[in-house]
Amino acid sequence: MTTLALDVMSGDLGAQECVPAALLALAGDPDLQLLLVGDAAIIERSLAAERCSPSMRERLQIVPASQVILMTDAPREAIRRKKDSSMRIAVDLVQEGRAAAAVSAGNTGALTAIAHFVLKCLPEVERAPIMSAVPNARGHTHLLDLGANVRATALQLEQFAVMGAIVARDVHDIARPRVGVLNIGSEESKGHDLVQEAHARLRARAAAGEHDIFEYRGFVEGQDIFTGEVDVVVTDGFTGNVALKTMEGVAGLISGRLRREFTASWGAKLAGLIARPVLRRVSSSLDPRQYNGAVMVGLRRIVVKSHGSADRIALARAIAIAATAVRRQLVEHVTLALASGEKL
Amino acid sequence: MTTLALDVMSGDLGAQECVPAALLALAGDPDLQLLLVGDAAIIERSLAAERCSPSMRERLQIVPASQVILMTDAPREAIRRKKDSSMRIAVDLVQEGRAAAAVSAGNTGALTAIAHFVLKCLPEVERAPIMSAVPNARGHTHLLDLGANVRATALQLEQFAVMGAIVARDVHDIARPRVGVLNIGSEESKGHDLVQEAHARLRARAAAGEHDIFEYRGFVEGQDIFTGEVDVVVTDGFTGNVALKTMEGVAGLISGRLRREFTASWGAKLAGLIARPVLRRVSSSLDPRQYNGAVMVGLRRIVVKSHGSADRIALARAIAIAATAVRRQLVEHVTLALASGEKL
Repeated sequence: MTTLALDVMSGDLGAQECVPAALLALAGDPDLQLLLVGDAAIIERSLAAERCSPSMRERLQIVPASQVILMTDAPREAIRRKKDSSMRIAVDLVQEGRAAAAVSAGNTGALTAIAHFVLKCLPEVERAPIMSAVPNARGHTHLLDLGANVRATALQLEQFAVMGAIVARDVHDIARPRVGVLNIGSEESKGHDLVQEAHARLRARAAAGEHDIFEYRGFVEGQDIFTGEVDVVVTDGFTGNVALKTMEGVAGLISGRLRREFTASWGAKLAGLIARPVLRRVSSSLDPRQYNGAVMVGLRRIVVKSHGSADRIALARAIAIAATAVRRQLVEHVTLALASGEKL
Repeated sequence: MTTLALDVMSGDLGAQECVPAALLALAGDPDLQLLLVGDAAIIERSLAAERCSPSMRERLQIVPASQVILMTDAPREAIRRKKDSSMRIAVDLVQEGRAAAAVSAGNTGALTAIAHFVLKCLPEVERAPIMSAVPNARGHTHLLDLGANVRATALQLEQFAVMGAIVARDVHDIARPRVGVLNIGSEESKGHDLVQEAHARLRARAAAGEHDIFEYRGFVEGQDIFTGEVDVVVTDGFTGNVALKTMEGVAGLISGRLRREFTASWGAKLAGLIARPVLRRVSSSLDPRQYNGAVMVGLRRIVVKSHGSADRIALARAIAIAATAVRRQLVEHVTLALASGEKL
């Protein structure tokens, strides 16, 4: 049995989506147990509304929490003033060993801060990177760091490569992930000292035959995030965050333009009506919620962040990812990989 | 009369598009003269094919060049071995004072290198940034630096703000451009020392009432490049290049997905046929060629870079931009603005 703690109160939809998501996850995984953390009355009501069967109910336990961390709460304040929040209690349950991992759809900054504060990083890791999957032409690319560290060292970029590859392998079943370092050109001479040094370290590693958990592919450029040539793209948190938000901005611009043009005239509206099923398929194939569940890697325990706007199906996916990460011993593999290299 | 040098041989389409573009530009601007630089026989043939009128012919002059810089030529090699190339001669003509500005659709790296080598930067500028316009929800955002400098100092970012604002005002008629510094959050506390220091400099400047040529709007995030909240976005060349290429990558991914889904079945093909005019409008409204002509700012003279794939209309627009920059005295304004501030 794998036991996970689920922060039921956070995210845009709260218990209304989180409780059905929990039931979906339990239905899909007979070896799963869940601790539902939040307002007991609300959770009981949701369970009744969803007609939770008694056998399913046996694999569920409610852990009460009186507070909720809001999307507007500052991380530091969340740590200091919301010790009885559903998010904090879920992470505390992991620290106490009552749950093997925590899942939350809440405030990213607060979750990152609480996870670092309560669970701590692995000894070799200075600060756990934020990692996320973005769609590419063939599947998904795993991108890290997305903003945990505004500056990175070459050693940290090397660690990101190792950790990203292990998550891609253990959680997303990519046998020998291809890893690239984000740069402004794919030629060896391009870029500044940081990427040059990281490249030298990774190349030396590849030459030494160490860490064949991943295949180092050298430098990649911004557009390569979307081609599927590599599985993991490594960069510092500043650049990664700008790339992620630029991505969201372009997608928003294009979908806004499509909406505007398809409503500009009666003829366009008719065309839009006819094209709608196809446009929906395109948009849902690129929807980040289709690939929900970002593993926070580099901590002593597993925390999975779900998109705030995730619906029950996407949330159930995030829960399944947490269970997979636990069962495949992600933390142990990361610890080993970082320790067996040169002194990190 | 404004005289410009046009590198006729470069770009994906060469003389075949450049010569008609020259004629279009001359037809649209009675005070323009052009020096067409390239293979004289090819140019004469194109002029004959386009039925260039004798009166138009009077405002044209052919300057022979025996070489062409290819897209695959390394910048350093282009400088060393292609001294009689159309690109080099066009820039030389500017240096010699025979033309007021040069326009080329060729290899960006080679053009940047040749422009720096032949024309040199303004005394206050270490290296001229690359600036480009990207579409936003209301019009265009001017983004710099896109990769001339892999590392920037806070002073350079401040200079980028000044230069970007002057180009936006003088060339693109934006009365008092709103300028933002790219960061990973819009809160004042976010980001690393470089953006923090640049922010402090720009805020101090705004408080001192100096440089009211632009309105400093503080930090912006990746998605804000596309909302139209600011006219100019300032960043270092590494981040800017990653953002630009990420943008291209996402746009390519989405258009590839649309193509795939609209050809997946007969029904989808039919829907695609009906939706095609609207989809074309969306795609052309986002086409970077619609806004062709990137001014290289920070050099002692004006050089305008056209997209390599620009057609005659887009190229004619790049020529018109060069003429506008000359007539509005862009270089003089940049020199004054950089010199009148604190010691730069």
